[in-house]
Amino acid sequence: MTDFEFEWLDGGGITAAGGFKACGLYAGLKRNKKDLALIFSERPGTAAGVFTTNRVKGAPVLISMPRVRAGRLQALIINSGNANTCNGPGGIEDALEMGRVTAAALDIPEETVLVASTGVIGQRLPLDKITEAVPRAVALLSTEGGLDAAEAIMTTDTVPKQAALRFRAEPDGPVVTIGGIAKGSGMIHPNMATMMAFITTDAAVEAPLLQEALRHAVDRSFHMISVDGDTSTNDMVVVVANGWSGARPLAPGSAAYGRFVQALTAVCVRLARAIARDGEGATRLLEVRIKGAPSEEDARLAARAVISSSLVKTAVFGNDANWGRIICAAGYSGAVFNPDRFDVYLGDLQVAGDGRGLDFDEERASRILARDPVVVTVDFHDGDGEARAWGCDFSYDYVRINANYRT
Amino acid sequence: MTDFEFEWLDGGGITAAGGFKACGLYAGLKRNKKDLALIFSERPGTAAGVFTTNRVKGAPVLISMPRVRAGRLQALIINSGNANTCNGPGGIEDALEMGRVTAAALDIPEETVLVASTGVIGQRLPLDKITEAVPRAVALLSTEGGLDAAEAIMTTDTVPKQAALRFRAEPDGPVVTIGGIAKGSGMIHPNMATMMAFITTDAAVEAPLLQEALRHAVDRSFHMISVDGDTSTNDMVVVVANGWSGARPLAPGSAAYGRFVQALTAVCVRLARAIARDGEGATRLLEVRIKGAPSEEDARLAARAVISSSLVKTAVFGNDANWGRIICAAGYSGAVFNPDRFDVYLGDLQVAGDGRGLDFDEERASRILARDPVVVTVDFHDGDGEARAWGCDFSYDYVRINANYRT
Repeated sequence: MTDFEFEWLDGGGITAAGGFKACGLYAGLKRNKKDLALIFSERPGTAAGVFTTNRVKGAPVLISMPRVRAGRLQALIINSGNANTCNGPGGIEDALEMGRVTAAALDIPEETVLVASTGVIGQRLPLDKITEAVPRAVALLSTEGGLDAAEAIMTTDTVPKQAALRFRAEPDGPVVTIGGIAKGSGMIHPNMATMMAFITTDAAVEAPLLQEALRHAVDRSFHMISVDGDTSTNDMVVVVANGWSGARPLAPGSAAYGRFVQALTAVCVRLARAIARDGEGATRLLEVRIKGAPSEEDARLAARAVISSSLVKTAVFGNDANWGRIICAAGYSGAVFNPDRFDVYLGDLQVAGDGRGLDFDEERASRILARDPVVVTVDFHDGDGEARAWGCDFSYDYVRINANYRT
Repeated sequence: MTDFEFEWLDGGGITAAGGFKACGLYAGLKRNKKDLALIFSERPGTAAGVFTTNRVKGAPVLISMPRVRAGRLQALIINSGNANTCNGPGGIEDALEMGRVTAAALDIPEETVLVASTGVIGQRLPLDKITEAVPRAVALLSTEGGLDAAEAIMTTDTVPKQAALRFRAEPDGPVVTIGGIAKGSGMIHPNMATMMAFITTDAAVEAPLLQEALRHAVDRSFHMISVDGDTSTNDMVVVVANGWSGARPLAPGSAAYGRFVQALTAVCVRLARAIARDGEGATRLLEVRIKGAPSEEDARLAARAVISSSLVKTAVFGNDANWGRIICAAGYSGAVFNPDRFDVYLGDLQVAGDGRGLDFDEERASRILARDPVVVTVDFHDGDGEARAWGCDFSYDYVRINANYRT
């Protein structure tokens, strides 16, 4: 895939693509904060999704997975404040009813509504508050409602997360837009659908091809971030493509499809980085770049282990150039590499070479670690495999936030 | 294996078994703290060991692994304050020299000396300080030196860790003793040789059988604890058996061997629990019991995921009965279980049943979580598999300690 031009849209999000409306409002699940988001496409779109691999799945995940697999969605209803998970058959019924009420208010088939929930596990959803709020949500739908939707899906997030860009899939074709919103903060970890992200595009893409594109993008973005190593019961990344741009349907293997995948990956990476940067208690983004690995998979394993290491994360928080923890994490990652050949860089400062420590300026290293973002590079000199992963430092506030989440 | 009687020896440790001496002293690697331990058997013993699976291994690990595999040891020399890891060929030479000097001072073959180091990675060992201290260490060796040795291997540990018991392998046979010391604190994680523990016994056990016994014990003790998910480059568990008790050599599959394995496991569990309880910044021991899993392996996977979860650990620190995090961790562990049938208990208080939350007394749950130890039980009602794992809560002090380890 060759690089090509795309234009980032400042402040753009879930409604940047043509034919999409959204809103976010207060339904009463949280205290004085928006807690219900609705996203709607003027016409049914194709859909693709990646869902949590946790053995315990939230009721909304269980009912939404087959709908996404069927490949067609027109609306997404999402609440924060309650995960509707571990609630038995009653929880399933609540999730179905949340979708049914939304479908009725929008006058669309129930099977084209995706339902998602995030929040505390094991408490029944206050369904009456949601059913009461859904008609208000429908009335609020607007092409200006993307930021409200981004705010309504937040839990311990400190900032809403959205991104959008536009490009031409074909040189003489119409402009295509991809936009999305995400939530993260706690329970963010690679190797699964790791949090919630909802993406819309006015490209025309058949569902199986859209699924292939999303898998590529997620493997290089949401699967490469970690906040605390836990993977939630309710995580999902879902994309809806409604063809509103008038662009020709993307053909598998075409240059246009390649550009679409690249643009979708860029949107996902931007949202994923925003999630990592906003990890609970985080003060800085940590970007880990692995180079020279025997394979891309080895590079990915090593990158994810380093950003997931509590010892690396606390060292970054303390501006401590303890690079031994970085290579130790790479060492237990399962990645294959020659332990006598690696180089380690903090920013552009080399601190280890040929598998051993170098004399370096500790004060300069501390200053590099105090910057945001912190970039760590490890070169294994053992092949062509490369990968990047994103995490955050580990501060006192992580403990404070998570010791008192429910109270 | 049936239960049998063994007697714990208060204050006993690495010199509890007959024919072993030890000492711990200040060699100058740390600031005003004991940093060099020597353990010596009056006659060569058989040896077994479990070593880190980290791809990056410390120089002492690299030279000691073949010596343990050869099955014969008479002395162990261990320093804290420097891991002698990632130091290139010079580091290997330093580790060899540390063993050579010890062998010469004790007048024993170099190949029967185990060398171990723990501390910072990537800085050369101040070898002259060690070579200067070794003759003093030999002069200090005593049957009373076990506690000094336990203190000398500490890094961020707040208390020395030792345990010893005695029993009769055969009803009419001599009393056999097993004792050990351990260090832990940071970088403790299951699934590997997870920290340092040195165990001595005056039983007579051929090396291959001793290795089998140690593997059994380690899988149920050191592999079932976690402090922060990182696995060090230098971890090892080593046992030496010198036959001093006069007991008959243990026969594979015999009742006497079964009792030995049970006693060795008990010593390892006690040392492992002590490590978990003394996790960096820990205020309480967390014991997780999994019952009713489809297999022991499923139970082990789930138990380890729960004690490793940062979200569970912070909830315990905050006395927050957020059991959803417990079942979420079990869910992503890879363990097979029916998500609609589990029960969860905090102490003796049931908080979830049949896969969903119960109404319970939140204040009582908080009081249970505030006690030390905290016992969490999950019953999957899905088979006979059982396992226990041990960890600790996750406090502000973990962050403080690890943000400033080197400074």
